[in-house]
Amino acid sequence: MSAVHPMWLPDDVFRPLGRRAVRVDADASGDPVLATVRDEVAAAVTRFGGTLAGPDDRADLVLTVEPADGPDTHTVARSAGTTTVRATGARALLHGLHDVVRLGERAFADDLAERHVAPVNELRMLDHWDNVDVHPVMGQVERGYAGGSIFYADGRVRDDLSRVAQYARLLGSVGINAVGLNNVNVHRTEARLLTDGLPDVARLAALFRPHGIRVFLSVSFAAPITVGGLPTSDPLDPDVQAWWAQRAADVYAVVPDFGGFVVKADSEGQPGPFAYGRDHADGANLLARALRPFGGTVFWRAFVYDHRQDWRDRSTDRARAAFDHFSPLDGRFDDNVVLQVKYGPMDFQAREPVSPVIAAMPRTRLAVELQVTQEYTGQQRHAVWLGPQWSQILRFPLWGEGGRTVADVAAGLGDRPGADPGTDPGTAPGAGPGAGAPRRAGLVAVSNVGDDAFWTGHPLAQANLYTFARLAWDPEADPLALLDEWVTLTFPSADDEVRAALHAILDDSWRTYEDYTAPLGVGFMVRPGHHYGPDVDGYEYTPWGTYHFADRDGIGVDRTRATGTGFTGQYPAPWRDVYEDLATCPDDLLLFFHHVPWSHVLHSGVSVAQHVYDTHADGAARTEANAARWARVAGRVPDDLHGRVTERLAEQVRSAHEWSDQLRSYVHRHSGIPDARGRTIH
Amino acid sequence: MSAVHPMWLPDDVFRPLGRRAVRVDADASGDPVLATVRDEVAAAVTRFGGTLAGPDDRADLVLTVEPADGPDTHTVARSAGTTTVRATGARALLHGLHDVVRLGERAFADDLAERHVAPVNELRMLDHWDNVDVHPVMGQVERGYAGGSIFYADGRVRDDLSRVAQYARLLGSVGINAVGLNNVNVHRTEARLLTDGLPDVARLAALFRPHGIRVFLSVSFAAPITVGGLPTSDPLDPDVQAWWAQRAADVYAVVPDFGGFVVKADSEGQPGPFAYGRDHADGANLLARALRPFGGTVFWRAFVYDHRQDWRDRSTDRARAAFDHFSPLDGRFDDNVVLQVKYGPMDFQAREPVSPVIAAMPRTRLAVELQVTQEYTGQQRHAVWLGPQWSQILRFPLWGEGGRTVADVAAGLGDRPGADPGTDPGTAPGAGPGAGAPRRAGLVAVSNVGDDAFWTGHPLAQANLYTFARLAWDPEADPLALLDEWVTLTFPSADDEVRAALHAILDDSWRTYEDYTAPLGVGFMVRPGHHYGPDVDGYEYTPWGTYHFADRDGIGVDRTRATGTGFTGQYPAPWRDVYEDLATCPDDLLLFFHHVPWSHVLHSGVSVAQHVYDTHADGAARTEANAARWARVAGRVPDDLHGRVTERLAEQVRSAHEWSDQLRSYVHRHSGIPDARGRTIH
Repeated sequence: MSAVHPMWLPDDVFRPLGRRAVRVDADASGDPVLATVRDEVAAAVTRFGGTLAGPDDRADLVLTVEPADGPDTHTVARSAGTTTVRATGARALLHGLHDVVRLGERAFADDLAERHVAPVNELRMLDHWDNVDVHPVMGQVERGYAGGSIFYADGRVRDDLSRVAQYARLLGSVGINAVGLNNVNVHRTEARLLTDGLPDVARLAALFRPHGIRVFLSVSFAAPITVGGLPTSDPLDPDVQAWWAQRAADVYAVVPDFGGFVVKADSEGQPGPFAYGRDHADGANLLARALRPFGGTVFWRAFVYDHRQDWRDRSTDRARAAFDHFSPLDGRFDDNVVLQVKYGPMDFQAREPVSPVIAAMPRTRLAVELQVTQEYTGQQRHAVWLGPQWSQILRFPLWGEGGRTVADVAAGLGDRPGADPGTDPGTAPGAGPGAGAPRRAGLVAVSNVGDDAFWTGHPLAQANLYTFARLAWDPEADPLALLDEWVTLTFPSADDEVRAALHAILDDSWRTYEDYTAPLGVGFMVRPGHHYGPDVDGYEYTPWGTYHFADRDGIGVDRTRATGTGFTGQYPAPWRDVYEDLATCPDDLLLFFHHVPWSHVLHSGVSVAQHVYDTHADGAARTEANAARWARVAGRVPDDLHGRVTERLAEQVRSAHEWSDQLRSYVHRHSGIPDARGRTIH
Repeated sequence: MSAVHPMWLPDDVFRPLGRRAVRVDADASGDPVLATVRDEVAAAVTRFGGTLAGPDDRADLVLTVEPADGPDTHTVARSAGTTTVRATGARALLHGLHDVVRLGERAFADDLAERHVAPVNELRMLDHWDNVDVHPVMGQVERGYAGGSIFYADGRVRDDLSRVAQYARLLGSVGINAVGLNNVNVHRTEARLLTDGLPDVARLAALFRPHGIRVFLSVSFAAPITVGGLPTSDPLDPDVQAWWAQRAADVYAVVPDFGGFVVKADSEGQPGPFAYGRDHADGANLLARALRPFGGTVFWRAFVYDHRQDWRDRSTDRARAAFDHFSPLDGRFDDNVVLQVKYGPMDFQAREPVSPVIAAMPRTRLAVELQVTQEYTGQQRHAVWLGPQWSQILRFPLWGEGGRTVADVAAGLGDRPGADPGTDPGTAPGAGPGAGAPRRAGLVAVSNVGDDAFWTGHPLAQANLYTFARLAWDPEADPLALLDEWVTLTFPSADDEVRAALHAILDDSWRTYEDYTAPLGVGFMVRPGHHYGPDVDGYEYTPWGTYHFADRDGIGVDRTRATGTGFTGQYPAPWRDVYEDLATCPDDLLLFFHHVPWSHVLHSGVSVAQHVYDTHADGAARTEANAARWARVAGRVPDDLHGRVTERLAEQVRSAHEWSDQLRSYVHRHSGIPDARGRTIH
């Protein structure tokens, strides 16, 4: 394959619109986003035989801007044989156009119900962990599983950025409005994007701008020293403040709509304010004040923990770290700081509880960070569609059923009607849920694309990128409906059998992956370093704080207040009690919160050991069924795509059996408990 | 430190000779080795005020050549106030000179006993695993722990080879007579040393030649394809044979005393004869016949096993592989092939039984391979002097007490007087020990030097290089005497306290290292990839064939004939029975041969679990004592050397405690057996 796969925008999806008479009622001169709308319509009608209707012509579709304040909003209404999209601005009109594209022929059905559409989240962002220089260990894209970077090659920004232009169009079509251009681990060369690299940043920004997307740079907290030659990067030092102010001015001089900075500070070896006895509010506000005159935003990551932990020390709990560091700082962050919080307290595992930080910062703008790139979920060699995981996280009611959810906090939404969130002595006193003004932020995720011909290595991993973008727009969307939408767009000529095969492989793929990997919420058990494939004890005696404490008697991490690290106390009620009690802790998080005997009987009715035997054998078996199912649709999807998916499914079958066999052997060797179903254990 | 450390040849060791009248009775013109002898003497007398005696002058020392056939031999005799060294040739004269240097003032004592000195081994070789290009994973020197390569930098042979000249002089002074110039894993650039690189090989050979050392190249079995452009590297293909013959002719045209080739074939991904359905005799003889017209030798490594083993398959045993591959080929190798056999059946572990291959190839020239570079023995961050290990291996009586040893086989020596080796139905039938003519070969080891200022990273690791060279000369030498010799030469001004400290740290350092690492011969338990530091289960579920099979009940590999892999049957009597029986198997190899309960009581009287607790706690504690001992000699050795050793000992203390803590936790978690001595287990 030499052509690049079109993802969810193959030409055919424009056919319903392109074969009709379409009028764009907006002056595109001077507005690059409106120009994009006009160009998309023009290309579509040219390709499919429709027309660009003039002001007095009858039109099947009218796209028009009716300026209004507030969030980007558009309506779609059908009347007298014409479908009209009314948008509050250029970006909203682009969203309206793609809403019509997704509706397909339905957009032109006379029974079309009127639609009022606005994004729930203000910020819908993708971070790229792309390095300019190839990192000796992490490569061109850290945790990238789709080839090289579309931005960088050979130690600099690419000359040919045509892939970036295509990518920007794809993201704009699903409402992404912010992109971080470089890895949050900022190395030497990458730190200079902020200075010598500005002309290249401007080139990249110019490609994203027509699609309503602002660009951000990850910066190093030590840049005043390493780039600026100052003796310090102390956030309270006036020279440091002046240096950052000048950097911001320089950026905005060439990129007037620059988004701002992304910062990983005092984390896994990255520099930060701790070196100067300052806290993370000092650090974040330093950058925020540099950006404020220009309307920029700081995304400050809450992923701060001790990665030089001693495995012998059972009292330190990495899960506690972000809450311990950040909850005392609530209210101290400037309002153009967004605290970027990973969804769970550890690190993008297939199963974690939601991070208690999300409930603990009512006076802080907070974005929830997800990981589209599949670092811990099969690295785009396994077909793992993460929509259900993300949806479950976003719908999680932080103060109990009916109350505000993770998505509500990220979006800055207030109390839900009818919910009684109560008060919570375990989090910020006096600043209970819903207190203060809503502080809009949104969702951020690490992108999964590279210069691979299918963009994402595994072609089916495109579904994750699509689903994330659509959930960032509307976190309450039904993920299965989004998957179906993705199938329709990506495989426009798919018959029922292809659709059924894709659903069979993807619908439950997250659960399948969880079934054959680390059980019951315990996490990790991956090979240190690259994080692919099983190594049950791989992190057990390391400084990374990711342990399971298995012995001949049992497994799991006691994070209770009664006898463990006390992490459960970081949650508001009811979760602080639900998780604390073995009787109420959900099975799928059992080993995250409790150390139990191998013989402990789950709510499901089987022992922990038997659960591992069952889920692992069954999960691995399902990957074989998936491969067989896919083999049957050969010839019904493009051969190159079929071949790539076939190859990946074969590797998933191999890897899943490796996981299954190792986990079952490990548990049997430790517990001595036989498999009640008599399967071979090596 | 900018100056390079002189190792065992500081100027001072030449003082006893250099302050006297010395005559060299040999015409050095045209013989580079004789020129070296003359230059060494001239430099010494110049430095220390002695004289070069003329033909009629009285001399304190006379060095003279009296040509004779047979191995290089020299005598040292004292008569009428003159010490005379008579040598059978130039190389022997160089050895005689350094014999006098090592004797020091004793060489000039009138009661000096006459010495007749000849090397036991014909071949005394160091292999360098140096890469020309920096390998992305293995670096410039594979398994190198002493900085860059002294041969290569920036993808080519260095312009400045002054370090190589110094190295050649050091090796020549202790009788090394062969050096392999490049890594046995031959990558793309290294394969071209044989073609484009010949002028550089000639430059290197010219630096080794004056010290009696021939150079060898590691070659790739696939070179006829990858370098030569042929469609095959089948050893029976005439074009392939012609290609190798031409390569040999090309090398000898520029390096007339070229030693030959070193080959790692069909091993860990290296190409070999198996690809063509040929065996290793076919492969080795192909190269041997190319080299024969020029007197060259092929070192063909027996390190052949399946590195894609399935951990689920308990019937395959990597320990069996070399014997299974090579013993049927005994008698098939040309007489300029030397089969290079690692001392143990696995891979340079701190403790392994000797390889049964050494007893199984009476009609094959066989060299035993040791590892001076400390891949599995602390990587020159730990002070581990391997003299006792090597001595124990070399003195091992392959057919029982009093019979021929490993050293005898390597040297090609016949039966020992009074020994009755019996016959051995388990090895090559009809070719019992001692059958056929002695086939002289020798010892090979992987070097531990790099461009580090101390040559070996850890300054005390110089003792390993010295001891190997001296044991290669005389495998029955007392290793402690060699260590003392090394101390005397390397620290010429050392007082008793320094000498005592060095002995305290080094004498038992191998046992100390064994005590805090993998117990009872089970091996590995190191971090996969880099092999440093503990990871008890790191290789347990890998394809590498290095398992310990620990579970809640016990640990170890059953290699018995009765119930295990049958590996014990590869040994001749009595070892096939000694190892087979739990009652006679030595403790220190117990887990290599048997899977036993944690509660199994050793000959030492404690259980396996308690043994781990005791040896690990004690071994780690001894490293602290060593560090304290070394601290007390500050100011009595050069500061830079003291500082480097101090830093390394601190790391050894840290690492030893990490090993100890992890191993004790691991055993306790699995066995549930408490430490009878009540020490903390984490």
